[in-house]
Amino acid sequence: MSTLGIIVEYNPFHNGHLFHFQQAKKITKADTTIAVMSGSFLQRGEPAIIDKWTRTKMALAQGVDLVIELPTIYATQSADWFAYGATFLLDQLNVDHLVFGSERNSLDLLNDVSDLLLNETTRFKKHLKETLSLGHSYPKALALSINHFLGKEDIEITQPNDILGIQYILNLKKMNSSVKVHTIKREYAGYHDPNISSHPIASATAIRKSIFTNNSLKDILSVVPNSTYQLLIQEFKQNRFNSWDNFFTTLQIMATGKDKLELSNIHGMLEGLENRIKQQLLAASSFSELMNLLTTKRYTKTKIQRTLLYLLLNLTKDKVRSLNVKKGPQYIRVLGFNDVGRAFLRRKKHDLNLPLITNIPRDKPLMLEIDINASKIYEAGFKNPSMIIDEYKQAPIYWK
Amino acid sequence: MSTLGIIVEYNPFHNGHLFHFQQAKKITKADTTIAVMSGSFLQRGEPAIIDKWTRTKMALAQGVDLVIELPTIYATQSADWFAYGATFLLDQLNVDHLVFGSERNSLDLLNDVSDLLLNETTRFKKHLKETLSLGHSYPKALALSINHFLGKEDIEITQPNDILGIQYILNLKKMNSSVKVHTIKREYAGYHDPNISSHPIASATAIRKSIFTNNSLKDILSVVPNSTYQLLIQEFKQNRFNSWDNFFTTLQIMATGKDKLELSNIHGMLEGLENRIKQQLLAASSFSELMNLLTTKRYTKTKIQRTLLYLLLNLTKDKVRSLNVKKGPQYIRVLGFNDVGRAFLRRKKHDLNLPLITNIPRDKPLMLEIDINASKIYEAGFKNPSMIIDEYKQAPIYWK
Repeated sequence: MSTLGIIVEYNPFHNGHLFHFQQAKKITKADTTIAVMSGSFLQRGEPAIIDKWTRTKMALAQGVDLVIELPTIYATQSADWFAYGATFLLDQLNVDHLVFGSERNSLDLLNDVSDLLLNETTRFKKHLKETLSLGHSYPKALALSINHFLGKEDIEITQPNDILGIQYILNLKKMNSSVKVHTIKREYAGYHDPNISSHPIASATAIRKSIFTNNSLKDILSVVPNSTYQLLIQEFKQNRFNSWDNFFTTLQIMATGKDKLELSNIHGMLEGLENRIKQQLLAASSFSELMNLLTTKRYTKTKIQRTLLYLLLNLTKDKVRSLNVKKGPQYIRVLGFNDVGRAFLRRKKHDLNLPLITNIPRDKPLMLEIDINASKIYEAGFKNPSMIIDEYKQAPIYWK
Repeated sequence: MSTLGIIVEYNPFHNGHLFHFQQAKKITKADTTIAVMSGSFLQRGEPAIIDKWTRTKMALAQGVDLVIELPTIYATQSADWFAYGATFLLDQLNVDHLVFGSERNSLDLLNDVSDLLLNETTRFKKHLKETLSLGHSYPKALALSINHFLGKEDIEITQPNDILGIQYILNLKKMNSSVKVHTIKREYAGYHDPNISSHPIASATAIRKSIFTNNSLKDILSVVPNSTYQLLIQEFKQNRFNSWDNFFTTLQIMATGKDKLELSNIHGMLEGLENRIKQQLLAASSFSELMNLLTTKRYTKTKIQRTLLYLLLNLTKDKVRSLNVKKGPQYIRVLGFNDVGRAFLRRKKHDLNLPLITNIPRDKPLMLEIDINASKIYEAGFKNPSMIIDEYKQAPIYWK
């Protein structure tokens, strides 16, 4: 018996995810698959289009056996923290394999890079600092320094899945984890196209764009599994597609009421960004207009979205400090399972070092409270209050 | 030459206000009328139905000569602070008369009561404390104690205009002001009816109710001056009627993101109310449902609305403390004037002890910043961002 771990957002689940998952099972011959999935808000600092429970159903419907929530404080951060939280959970769950998509699909190369980062020398740090001072964003500067030190100047490791993959490997090494790592070539056939083409694989970005632009699901039928499609139709009918637009007024009001000191106390607030937010937030008439006004070379879109998300969640620096993020996730929150997943949990539950959360306990760590609040805030964005999912009443999805 | 001061909200301006204003001019024979008016948010802790600039136009159109904004921190508080801020401004502006509506319309009685409050004895305070301990709200307990000490047990001074009037007199006495006070019988013919009847005077509450219930202005034609009606039609077409409903999602999100300590740091948060807000805010599916869930004998609707307003404005106890509210308004903000009002300002401006604000200065006191933020937040509640009034670009209304 062997267990496969995957790290996902499923925003929403589509044919590319299905392909990845099937390939991963084939490579590892695993009989159980565990997905560590982001909850209500995602790594790029935005609300998921569909709530986490429905995304859990999408995963279970296609054969994932167990879905675990990646706590918000890891799920919404840069690649290093995202990867740390996710691999920490997979290691705690004692999975045998981690399979991830990679643009380069060269485990040797990713291994070399992670070794370089693991043993970060003074020379490497100095080079990185210099590269940053040239005005590059952190991921870009890191990629440049890595290339410089590996002596492969023609190779740029700047693709998102490669960057995440390096962090997965690096973090597992730091933990001395026994989890075995594999890559799958991230097929770009359909991904390159910002729109949906005739190819059965489209990017999640293209799918979301199609849904919001057309206000219809008709074009995505060919690029998602039928189970996803049916669930999307159900959410569509209930007006439960979420986006930053649903939080724009609230953001305006929150940023207006907070003075600069209060804004600068928000987690992730870069120096000077609080001034730009104060100036631009009321000048913009929509969230996308705001993004255009705020984005610069220094403040990337993702960085700004994350900061605005922490503002929306009122995640102050003090709160984040008290979370002790370096010690890893403090619980294993179960979002859903099938019989295989349930059997896995029964076998493992006495050996786990972390509490297994299926119902929200009265006394809970701040890290879990933040997840619950994030989901409450996510739900408050919907216009149909009668449909709102109550985190305290929602049991994990049991997929039969 | 003599100057009349009035203290108003005009939410919206109606025939009752016109009647009051005309009577006041008749009594005082004043040639100039100055209205101190609440801005974006009102004494009962709610957004004005119409923005302050349009309400200024309504006043000027009917002959008010000068409109001054009562700073938010006074405009949204209980009668004592509201009255202090308003009379302070009228005293600074050196008006000769203050005329206010009164249910009892007995200046002698209101004078007696204000003397009692001015000389608050140990015995009076003890009685008040005991009355409060019986579970009465503060205004009710105060009224009971006053009646007890004036030996007029059959008289209950619990009507809102009387309570405000007592505070006007009391505050002017404390300031040793030379402003002369007059009352006008508050006619209840139309006011008693929660709906609009055939009487030409209806309450502002009945007018707002008619507008929101019918989503039309047809029934209010007979109870407002034509100038008000035309301005209301213009705002109606632009979808610029405001209410708490426009801020409900934001309130939910703000109260979710703040922990109990942060909520308890909001100005006016009564002990234990932060728990009730946390529990009930997500259970409610609308603002009025929330009010029903939160209101108790101890937490009156007005008290709760004010607290939720301070949450919306993010007015913390620290900020309010630093305002030094006891020292009175720190500026005279001009919202609008006609030629008479302009001449008045020209005559007075060199004798004023407070800065006269017509354009927002770069360096401004926190008290003014709160007014500006309140108006920005007020505007953010509207669904039509292209129509939003910019506090920095809007000059005072000059009515020719």
